Amino acid sequence: MQAPELSTVFAALADPTRRAILARLSEGEAPVKDLATPFDLSGPAITKHLNVLERAGLITRGRDGQRRPCRLEPQALAPATDWIEQLRSAWEARLDRLDAYLKSLAPAPQPRRRRRPPPSRTAGVTRGRKT
Amino acid sequence: MQAPELSTVFAALADPTRRAILARLSEGEAPVKDLATPFDLSGPAITKHLNVLERAGLITRGRDGQRRPCRLEPQALAPATDWIEQLRSAWEARLDRLDAYLKSLAPAPQPRRRRRPPPSRTAGVTRGRKT
Repeated sequence: MQAPELSTVFAALADPTRRAILARLSEGEAPVKDLATPFDLSGPAITKHLNVLERAGLITRGRDGQRRPCRLEPQALAPATDWIEQLRSAWEARLDRLDAYLKSLAPAPQPRRRRRPPPSRTAGVTRGRKT
Repeated sequence: MQAPELSTVFAALADPTRRAILARLSEGEAPVKDLATPFDLSGPAITKHLNVLERAGLITRGRDGQRRPCRLEPQALAPATDWIEQLRSAWEARLDRLDAYLKSLAPAPQPRRRRRPPPSRTAGVTRGRKT
């Protein structure tokens, strides 16, 4: 089932502290205590955030005793970017169809603006009559 | 403030019904009742989802009386894709630095695997002794 996973990933990203943790981990592995420090978070609070990120597959945690270094798993972002990309493609395909439809209605090139009938093109011809 | 907006966008995407509504709207505008039908949602339930999407800037709603057609606003996804892209870039830059560092440690080309000291390269030389 892809939908629940995708929801879990988006939900994990929907928090500024979790995004900041991911940004920190994009610079390299870090132990939990290093991640907690800049946010002034309690132990349970940081653990909760890390659990959410881990469930979404966005991080993994090493088994290095107390240290348990956290590591970013950027491939877990792929379903999210794929979904957004798919939505954009569908939207652009729709715009292309709309464009093609509008062109089919008006095959001849149209002037950009034509609010009233164009000024008489015969002015040059009729000028002879005036003089 | 960019962070709360980004959180709102990600949170809006973290629900399969809301993603399905966006996917439907990527095919074109739709009135609220057309959006509610496939999900068998009550009026208040669909309104709640549409409110979340509207607050995230992902849809707008027309003022066409009862019909109020909904429209996708795909540009609202840009901050989300930008953020993910930025994270990926930082990660890749880190891998490049790591790669450069490893190359600086071992300038000569290395065999792919070397779990133990390589087998004696002098075998060909010493064979003479054995015979």
